Amino acid sequence: MCRWLAYTGAPVFLDELICKPAHSLIEQSLCATEAKSPTNGDGFGIGWYGDRSEPGLYREVLPAWNDPNLKSLAYQIRAGMFFAHVRASTGTASSRPNCHPFAHGRWLFMHNGQIGGYQRLRRRLEGMIPDRYYDHRLGTTDSEVLFYLLFGNGLDVDPVGALSATLAQVHQVMAEEGVGEPLRFTAALSDGRSIYAVRHASDQAPPSLYWRAANCAGGSISIVSEPLEEPETWQSVPADRVLVVGPDLSVGFEDLDFLRPAADRAAE
Amino acid sequence: MCRWLAYTGAPVFLDELICKPAHSLIEQSLCATEAKSPTNGDGFGIGWYGDRSEPGLYREVLPAWNDPNLKSLAYQIRAGMFFAHVRASTGTASSRPNCHPFAHGRWLFMHNGQIGGYQRLRRRLEGMIPDRYYDHRLGTTDSEVLFYLLFGNGLDVDPVGALSATLAQVHQVMAEEGVGEPLRFTAALSDGRSIYAVRHASDQAPPSLYWRAANCAGGSISIVSEPLEEPETWQSVPADRVLVVGPDLSVGFEDLDFLRPAADRAAE
Amino acid sequence: MCRWLAYTGAPVFLDELICKPAHSLIEQSLCATEAKSPTNGDGFGIGWYGDRSEPGLYREVLPAWNDPNLKSLAYQIRAGMFFAHVRASTGTASSRPNCHPFAHGRWLFMHNGQIGGYQRLRRRLEGMIPDRYYDHRLGTTDSEVLFYLLFGNGLDVDPVGALSATLAQVHQVMAEEGVGEPLRFTAALSDGRSIYAVRHASDQAPPSLYWRAANCAGGSISIVSEPLEEPETWQSVPADRVLVVGPDLSVGFEDLDFLRPAADRAAE
Amino acid sequence: MCRWLAYTGAPVFLDELICKPAHSLIEQSLCATEAKSPTNGDGFGIGWYGDRSEPGLYREVLPAWNDPNLKSLAYQIRAGMFFAHVRASTGTASSRPNCHPFAHGRWLFMHNGQIGGYQRLRRRLEGMIPDRYYDHRLGTTDSEVLFYLLFGNGLDVDPVGALSATLAQVHQVMAEEGVGEPLRFTAALSDGRSIYAVRHASDQAPPSLYWRAANCAGGSISIVSEPLEEPETWQSVPADRVLVVGPDLSVGFEDLDFLRPAADRAAE
Repeated sequence: MCRWLAYTGAPVFLDELICKPAHSLIEQSLCATEAKSPTNGDGFGIGWYGDRSEPGLYREVLPAWNDPNLKSLAYQIRAGMFFAHVRASTGTASSRPNCHPFAHGRWLFMHNGQIGGYQRLRRRLEGMIPDRYYDHRLGTTDSEVLFYLLFGNGLDVDPVGALSATLAQVHQVMAEEGVGEPLRFTAALSDGRSIYAVRHASDQAPPSLYWRAANCAGGSISIVSEPLEEPETWQSVPADRVLVVGPDLSVGFEDLDFLRPAADRAAE
Repeated sequence: MCRWLAYTGAPVFLDELICKPAHSLIEQSLCATEAKSPTNGDGFGIGWYGDRSEPGLYREVLPAWNDPNLKSLAYQIRAGMFFAHVRASTGTASSRPNCHPFAHGRWLFMHNGQIGGYQRLRRRLEGMIPDRYYDHRLGTTDSEVLFYLLFGNGLDVDPVGALSATLAQVHQVMAEEGVGEPLRFTAALSDGRSIYAVRHASDQAPPSLYWRAANCAGGSISIVSEPLEEPETWQSVPADRVLVVGPDLSVGFEDLDFLRPAADRAAE
Repeated sequence: MCRWLAYTGAPVFLDELICKPAHSLIEQSLCATEAKSPTNGDGFGIGWYGDRSEPGLYREVLPAWNDPNLKSLAYQIRAGMFFAHVRASTGTASSRPNCHPFAHGRWLFMHNGQIGGYQRLRRRLEGMIPDRYYDHRLGTTDSEVLFYLLFGNGLDVDPVGALSATLAQVHQVMAEEGVGEPLRFTAALSDGRSIYAVRHASDQAPPSLYWRAANCAGGSISIVSEPLEEPETWQSVPADRVLVVGPDLSVGFEDLDFLRPAADRAAE
Repeated sequence: MCRWLAYTGAPVFLDELICKPAHSLIEQSLCATEAKSPTNGDGFGIGWYGDRSEPGLYREVLPAWNDPNLKSLAYQIRAGMFFAHVRASTGTASSRPNCHPFAHGRWLFMHNGQIGGYQRLRRRLEGMIPDRYYDHRLGTTDSEVLFYLLFGNGLDVDPVGALSATLAQVHQVMAEEGVGEPLRFTAALSDGRSIYAVRHASDQAPPSLYWRAANCAGGSISIVSEPLEEPETWQSVPADRVLVVGPDLSVGFEDLDFLRPAADRAAE
């Protein structure tokens, strides 16, 4: 599993969330408390929206707690929207292309979880990636495949619909292949304007996810695998729902469509 | 492109070929003379057959000229058969899983060349990898796909036939997709007993390949992208042929089957 | 040897100098034309002045041509003053702490050159670093020692005087130890306001150094080991002089004091 | 702090101790149980005596649990004497030259512990390294300085005496500089024939150290920071004593000389 955080709001230096809090993401790389394993030392990454149309990306295979470049970059870079992720590999190699977040065009994506029985599903899931995205993959993780499945399912026009369709697709392939291991998927997406965060699992154990709104200095929304500090000030994101934070920092929740009864969907 | 060497014969310390010669593989990593580009600094790898049933593997993203571990390992490890490769990326990421040689079971494989228009062919070629090998890929290179296509084409029972069938497969897909860029493929394979080295291109520019037999100390055969020293003592491997070195250091040449007229093949 | 560039002026994205020009610093990492060796692939670094009181620093042991993080950072980071350096090691390890630029407080320093016979001088030169700086060294290069000798010689109050005093110090130790190899020192310093660039050698072969003023977009001064493009638009920095670029982009030259006749100095 | 193991005896594949045991060194890199911190993920190293007069060395900044090269090398390399070390940095950079073991000539050295207040002592301790060793340091750790102080104190002729003299030297400098933090030093040395392991601290908390003799397959002695398995089969090394394992696997204990009353020493 992994730990991650997403931020949007008044521009802040990245180290305000990544390094400084008592239970910062760097602290979680060494000592997570709500993850399957405490150590998330198999690489890390940050993605941020700055002055360019595409986000910046810094990914490295060293543990986050041990990279002076990360420390300097997080101290220097100020952004109104950014993602950060520390990785605990579920089997694939520790290489930069396998580190989150993944970027494509305006979009950033990061993931904590795992597709159960992925070894058996890899061919079918990779095969579902549309031609125009197929060769864009730089690594070999299930997470990166999910990212490009999202594009194939209309991410650019309907992000929540794309999340629903992609998870439905994966569930179906898992069912057809008789996979018993669970699908766990706690992820964040952004196009630089809105953030879409989802917490889902096919069993009763979706990875933890919290969010908090802050009013100071123009306001901000943070979404995190584990509270960075003052746990009582964070709310848990309900399972199977998509938290949508708009450009105006509006917060809403939407359902994953494929989980609703077919009758409901037909009635729309 | 890349540079590589393969050795079989009386056990030697690896540095005898990798480090010591005037135009050693490490020298070629910095300053190759017969390659498209002189610098082969995008990682490297060594594979060797020791006391285990499977070969050892050390791959790293640093330039070969600049890795003290390689220097120490090449100084310490003695082997009667080994491969070494320095990489000049043709586009894919510099990550350890993308470095040669690749290993699977008893087999080692390394490659200098490129599948023209691979971006457009990737889906079809990956799709041709048999199920049992599909998830073994750790990286994203065309070279690693070629390795697993070889397995799918019977590498374990008929290595030369597998080379012919795989190249025929790639040529066919390239033709069907209308790829105009050439296929270049200068590669070595070993199961720890024999070495199979091939030099092929769809145009008139197959990458360079040389071999030399030495009689001293029990004898040996070296196969290299560029002569390591005394160029006049090396012979060029003819294009479109497979050099086969047996466990007794016998040397033979075989044709790539798909290049012979269909009539000849039918007559067999 | 190494290659470097320093920029001050209207804020630009770093890739405008590091990546885009025909003979950009990244191109020079692979194929320098005025250096002792064409390949500068033993790591690299960038330092820039942003919104913090101290400069940012990103240093890595990979070749500059081969680091996607550098590409993304240079594309994202915009600065009105920055340094960039690609390294060709003269013997010390390829480790991040040995990569340039070096940072201390507000100051950045980078160096192309070598102290002849450093192995014999290391103890004495390290011994000359004042106590308050002694433990700040993170690596083992002669360059980093020179940086802290500069602090000991008054860098904070008189940068040109500190350069003169430090070079005089090194020359004296070299003479006392009977070192015949040359001192070569082409370096840049900045406190985030001014840049001090010097080109010096004890023999007739100081490493190349050029500068150019541009008037467009608020103006700028670039100082480089090799012209990035249009060689005829760059001027060579004279040997044994210090090029000083002020916060207003004023350009002046000062002499290295220890090179002037003692009589002149006494007369001041 | 760190964790390490030393082995001498019948040749074994390194993975028998590094990877396979339930509480192997790789397991300890992720989850040590007797260390100040459970995670020892700031690099690692192995050193072994093979067919050459000098030991082999493989050191890397990645966590040991996450390096496929280590896995392959430990699976392939068989040795009758080897060291392995996983690092938890006490402040110095994560670079290969700062990883243990350190090698010089025939000697290997590795260390778990810390010189209290080293920042204040660094100049004096480095200054005590004899000229002929001064420039051999590749990194910036207190451990590497201790290694070269041992040479200066006669390591080649009297290893136990050199350990005593070096620790006495450090204690004296600490006392003179008024350092209150403890010296902790649990270390191993080998010349390829014998192993010298010592467990010492200036306070009541010397890092843990155990040893075990095995009779099977020619016999062997293992010395470890934490038992690899079956804790009841290991004996704790007493504090302030030097465990000496001879080429014949004889085991003896010697006192650190400087700890004995001066009167005793005078009487010798």
